[in-house]
Formats: sequence, C-alpha cells, structure tokens
Amino acid sequence: MNNLVLQSDFGLDDGAVSAMYGVAVGTSPKLHIYNLTHNIPPYDIWEGSYRLAQTIDYWPEGTVFVSVVDPGVGSDRLSVVAKTKTGHYIVTPNNGTLTHVNAIFGITDIRTIDETINRRAGSEASYTFHGRDIYAFTGARLAAGIISFDDVGPRVPLDALVTLDYEEPTFVDGEIRGIIEAHDVRYGSLWTSIPRTLFLDMADGFNQRFRLRVFNQGRQVHSNHMLYVPSFASVEVGDSLLYVNSLDRMAIAINRGSYAHAFNIGTGTSWQVSLAHYEL
Amino acid sequence: MNNLVLQSDFGLDDGAVSAMYGVAVGTSPKLHIYNLTHNIPPYDIWEGSYRLAQTIDYWPEGTVFVSVVDPGVGSDRLSVVAKTKTGHYIVTPNNGTLTHVNAIFGITDIRTIDETINRRAGSEASYTFHGRDIYAFTGARLAAGIISFDDVGPRVPLDALVTLDYEEPTFVDGEIRGIIEAHDVRYGSLWTSIPRTLFLDMADGFNQRFRLRVFNQGRQVHSNHMLYVPSFASVEVGDSLLYVNSLDRMAIAINRGSYAHAFNIGTGTSWQVSLAHYEL
Amino acid sequence: MNNLVLQSDFGLDDGAVSAMYGVAVGTSPKLHIYNLTHNIPPYDIWEGSYRLAQTIDYWPEGTVFVSVVDPGVGSDRLSVVAKTKTGHYIVTPNNGTLTHVNAIFGITDIRTIDETINRRAGSEASYTFHGRDIYAFTGARLAAGIISFDDVGPRVPLDALVTLDYEEPTFVDGEIRGIIEAHDVRYGSLWTSIPRTLFLDMADGFNQRFRLRVFNQGRQVHSNHMLYVPSFASVEVGDSLLYVNSLDRMAIAINRGSYAHAFNIGTGTSWQVSLAHYEL
Repeated sequence: MNNLVLQSDFGLDDGAVSAMYGVAVGTSPKLHIYNLTHNIPPYDIWEGSYRLAQTIDYWPEGTVFVSVVDPGVGSDRLSVVAKTKTGHYIVTPNNGTLTHVNAIFGITDIRTIDETINRRAGSEASYTFHGRDIYAFTGARLAAGIISFDDVGPRVPLDALVTLDYEEPTFVDGEIRGIIEAHDVRYGSLWTSIPRTLFLDMADGFNQRFRLRVFNQGRQVHSNHMLYVPSFASVEVGDSLLYVNSLDRMAIAINRGSYAHAFNIGTGTSWQVSLAHYEL
Repeated sequence: MNNLVLQSDFGLDDGAVSAMYGVAVGTSPKLHIYNLTHNIPPYDIWEGSYRLAQTIDYWPEGTVFVSVVDPGVGSDRLSVVAKTKTGHYIVTPNNGTLTHVNAIFGITDIRTIDETINRRAGSEASYTFHGRDIYAFTGARLAAGIISFDDVGPRVPLDALVTLDYEEPTFVDGEIRGIIEAHDVRYGSLWTSIPRTLFLDMADGFNQRFRLRVFNQGRQVHSNHMLYVPSFASVEVGDSLLYVNSLDRMAIAINRGSYAHAFNIGTGTSWQVSLAHYEL
Repeated sequence: MNNLVLQSDFGLDDGAVSAMYGVAVGTSPKLHIYNLTHNIPPYDIWEGSYRLAQTIDYWPEGTVFVSVVDPGVGSDRLSVVAKTKTGHYIVTPNNGTLTHVNAIFGITDIRTIDETINRRAGSEASYTFHGRDIYAFTGARLAAGIISFDDVGPRVPLDALVTLDYEEPTFVDGEIRGIIEAHDVRYGSLWTSIPRTLFLDMADGFNQRFRLRVFNQGRQVHSNHMLYVPSFASVEVGDSLLYVNSLDRMAIAINRGSYAHAFNIGTGTSWQVSLAHYEL
C-alpha cells in the first residue's frame, strides 16, 4: 500500500525529479516512492504511454502512477486521474499518455483534478511545473490515502480521454501486420504490437522460419528471415530471432547485438512490421 | 522525518552511490534515502551548489542533504554540516557547494565534522572516498537522530564559509543584467539569476516583447527578441519565449526545442544575459 | 533488515527495472529496495561481477542482492542464490557473476532456485525476463523472510560455481603485475587488481615515484611514471598519481582528468599493468 511510482521526461541530471519527490515526501511519511523511468525522450507522449502499459500490471493493485510528459503545460489540456480495470491509478495530463493502458488493460473512470484543492500551497504563480505542483502532489495524497479517488475532482466521461492513433494488428492473407511500438532500449530489440495469441494463429510452434518485413511510412525499408524460438540462447550469437517478449507480444532481436542499430529501425505508428511464413 | 537526500558527481554507472547507500542503510533501519542527482558534471561545484538551491525548499524541514562534489578530497578543505534558515541540513565539503543556498535561503550555523567520532569504523586508511566514509555516514546518523547537530563537531564562524563569486542581478538604465545559472538540462532552457520580482519592476505584464542579449566573458555572442508569456503553450512550437521558471526566476526557451543547443550557450558566471524592452 | 539491492544491465530508459521493482514490492510491504547500478554494459558479466565486489561489504549483513546480467537467458545455465562469508546473499544466473565476490570475500553456500516454487505465478510462458519472473521475485521473498535460504532449492557443490578467468597479482623481480579490473567511470581512473598490502611489500611510503606500464593482450601500449600519494589533492591539477582506491587496491589517475580517456585504456583480463620503482 501507499506506493507511488513516478515517470517523466525530465531526465536525472538536474533537480526536477528530486523536487517532485520532496513534494511527495512532504505530504505523508507513509509513502513508498519509486521510479518508472525519467528518461522518456523529451515530449514523447507515445513512449510515455507505452512504458506505463509495460509496467503497471507488475505493481500491486492500488499503486498510484504519476506520468509527466507534458509538452502542453500551460495550455487548456486537462489534468486527470484515471482508474484502470486492474485497480491502478494514473495521474497525468490528458494528452494521449493513457493510450496504451486504455487499449491493453482498459480504463474505467476518469476524474479531472480540481486545482483549487489539489495543488501545492503557494504554487499558484508557477505555470511551468505542474509535475511538481499538481501531479506529484495529488498522486502522493491519493497514494497516502489523504484524499480518495472521489476527492480528485469531477468525473469526466470516458470519451473525453485523449488517445493517440493506435491501429490493432491484423492477420490477412497469411500475413500479420502490426507496428514497432518500442525498443528494448539497452539491447535494441524491436517490440511489436503483435500479440503472441494472434501470432500462434499462424505459427505451429517453435523453430519455424518467418519472413520479417519492416516499413517506414508505407515504404519497405528492411527484410529478413529468422527462426521463431523461445529465447536468445536458442540461436547462435549474432543470429536474428523472433520471440515472445516479456509483454506477451512478438519481438525481433539479434542475439547479443542491436537489431535497431544494425538496421536503423525506429519506433511509433509510422514503423510497420509484417510477419509471414518463410518460403524459399 | 528521517529523510536523507544524496547528491554527487559520481554518476550511476558504477558502485560508488550504492556504497554510500549501504553505509547509510547500515546506520539505521529508520532512514528514508532519496537522490537529488548523481549526474553533476565531474568536479562542477557550481552546478552542485545550484541543484541544492533548486530543490531543498521542496523537502520537509529537517531533511538532511549530503552533497559530494569534492575535487579537493584529501586536501585541507573542511568537511562541514550547514543548517539553513529553512531548517534543512547540508553535509558537504566546504568548497563553494553552499554558495546558492546561502545567497537564496541563508545559512544560520556551520559545524565542522569531527572525524574522530563521525567517520565509518575501519575507514581510516581510505583517503579518496569521504563521500562514503564521512559524508554519507554523518548525514545518515544525523537524519536518523543518532547524533544531533551539536554532535557533528565544533561550530565554525559563518564567515569561514567558502563561496563562489556570485554577482547579484542589476537593473540599470532600463536593462536588467544577470547570469545564466543553469540549464533545464533535458529541454535546454536557459535559467537566469534574474528574479521575477526584479523583472516585474521593468515589465508591465504578459505579452510584451523583450530584447535578450547573451555575453560570454564580456563579449556579446547572441541576441534575440521574444514575448514574455506564462508558459510554453503560449507560443507556437519552434518560437522562443521568456517566462518565469519553477524557481521564480526568468528563463528563456524555445517551445519544444533546445535554446542552449540551438545557440551554443553555456552556464556559469562567465555567461551574462541582459533583458530590456524591445524597440523596433 | 529486509534490504534488497538490484543490479542489472537493463539501463534506466525503459520499464524493465520498474517491472522488477513492482514484482518485489508486491511480495511484501516490509521491503526496502535499492539499486546497485543498472548501467552495467549489456552482457558484461565481468563488470557485473566487479561491481558486486565493490559494494556488498558496505551493506548490512543479511542484505539480498539480485544481479541480472544474463546473456544466456533461456539456456541451461543455472539460477542460483549464493551466500557469502560476509553474510550477504546474491541471486543471479550462475554465469561468472560471482567471480570477484568469491575471490575477494568467499562464498560458503550455493543453492539452485527451484522454479516450481520460486517463480512469479503466471510467468511460465515468459522465457526472456527471468530478472523479473525469477530473480527479483526470489530475492524479494528471501529479503522479506517469506522464504529462508534453505527454501530456495537444493544445495549445489561449491565447485559448480562458474567463474571467469581471474589471475592473482604477482610480485616477481621487483615488479608487481596485475590487471585493470574496472574504471572509476565518471573520473576515468584505472582500478587495478593489486592490493595495497602487496604494493607495500615493494613501496616504503608515500611520495616515491613508480614506473607504470600497461599491456593489452601481452603487448605494451602505455608507459608513464608518477608519485605514490594519499589522494588527488597531493598532486597538481593535470598530474598523474598512484593511490589506494576505496577498495584498498592500487589505482592510477590524472588529477581532474581521465586517465582512461587520455590514453585509451580499457578494462578486463586482457589489460595488464606493471608497477616498479622508477629509476632514471
């Protein structure tokens, strides 16, 4: 209980994250505060959205997440707290950050933050750091039980949720299409949006060979073929592999190499992948 | 209570920070230990000083900070604990690290660390890691209430405080002059030493246009003009803006770009800025 | 008590470390969770091994370490928990990660993890993230006292421990030879495997001058001479120095510079150093 998890694009080089921590610690000595990551690329709402979906379900029910990737700070974008079907809370600007969590886990309730109550005292003249003055403050008080979800502010209809474009993977004519949602950053693996269950509609089991094609903005930029195997150690060092990642989705890697660096492949909705049985 | 916040230039790539944590954890199970940042550029006392001032006041009274940017480790520079007017404690080498906190918040008491008492047992042969053997150890015991501030060691007169040169901003002939104290690292904004209150002696309100000039070692290296607005979202993406940062001082940015990178602008006392009303 | 310390080569840019934290937090609210480092270079078992030895003895007895540098995930390498002579526990793949701790502190017991019991429920279909599903889960339950060391799984004979090649330093014909085990990353100092005690068999005290030679794969690539001094401040800025590092071993640095960058010197068993008295 009383778990607060912070994410941002602030980096760890200056005092911004520590200021958020200080505000949170000041609300209650009961809190346990942790990081998701603070190295979301600046302004990259898509990546912030993905990292939330990558992690929330490994945290205990009731955990409160604060995610601050907020290029629109000072605009009229709403500040909200979302409750998920899995029983987690996410405090965030309503700017698309909830896209993946909504698509994968489902969001059941959204409330806007009533800033007349849920704002750090004395911060009214500060227009640029809502992460500290509103989000960390509100998330901490919610995690500590000082306010309930009802106390956050008025309920907002679910269709007010701002989401990024997000196409579901398809299986047509023996070919599965999806996008590259993210990299496994340190290792350079490509993490696709294709669920294992959909892939298994096509594949019969391990050690079959598949054709991978990668498209950027509709144009094919890469092609390769590789075995579908359980894990990295199933292929030689330097070989490519197709495997199920830790989010139960299909991923592509080079054993001990970086697929993303090797072939200059990015992430996001403009990066599509196709998987099909490999025919000589 | 029992909050300990660590800052250093050690980075997070090796075991140095973890060794400090281990020593702190070993003194008391009651401690809550957090980071300010460990990515202060190596030996950059100025930046360490600034980051303390950027954050301490967001932490509860009684929080103990340990700051280790210590190029003079092994010299005769003193090890001290400073008490601030805001009720915080800072454990640090007396090498200029307290400059900004002293100027902005005020320091009321300084004690030198009596190393015959306040040093990790068995560390006497180690001359190079006072961060672990003295500062983390002493900070942890102070934060845990094992020692009081009086137990740190003998009081030192306030004028023994080593401070870096630090010129107060001036308002002369319709022009405000200050320095660029730091960058908002991830976003590349320029954070100046000019307080909002001083700026408002010149400005009448938002949406006026100002002339910015930047000098390096006395020579003008950059000029631009921009609107004074509440926040990033007040201007178009790509436009420059003048705003009040989260420390209540004037800052300059490009909306979704990096002002520092765009114009190669650094930080420190050699980087001066001037602001004046813009006349065509 | 209840201290859990995590190390990995996952970096802090995505959600991997946070997922491990979430799993650990979910096992018990009593845990205190800390980081060693997550910036071990990808797949670098040697460095993971070294960083454990650099830090464990600064943590209280009973602390549980989880170290996940696991290029062989999915192979038949064992998952183990080792108990050290110092009373610490290390949860890790048995792939060489325990080399330095075994050589320096000694390991008294090893148990393989019985994955039928010690694995996160529902993770059976995941083959690529044992750090989350097995290591963090098991380490957390051990640190929280939910399982005892005996409950980990069957005991393994000590000679089943996989270790990397690791030559002890030698003192022959007035010359001490060792290897460069690691860098003090942020400062670029060379940390050798030569203990202070062995060096003092040759040196009579501070301020003597020594000849350093560096070999890569048997070939001499660098030579220099420098004073043996207590600390950085004993020499001018820009001068080289030989000193005792915070692990009580000999190290070489440039005061306020990076020795490793200046002379392009790496780490590992292929990098040998020799120290001898300097004769004109």
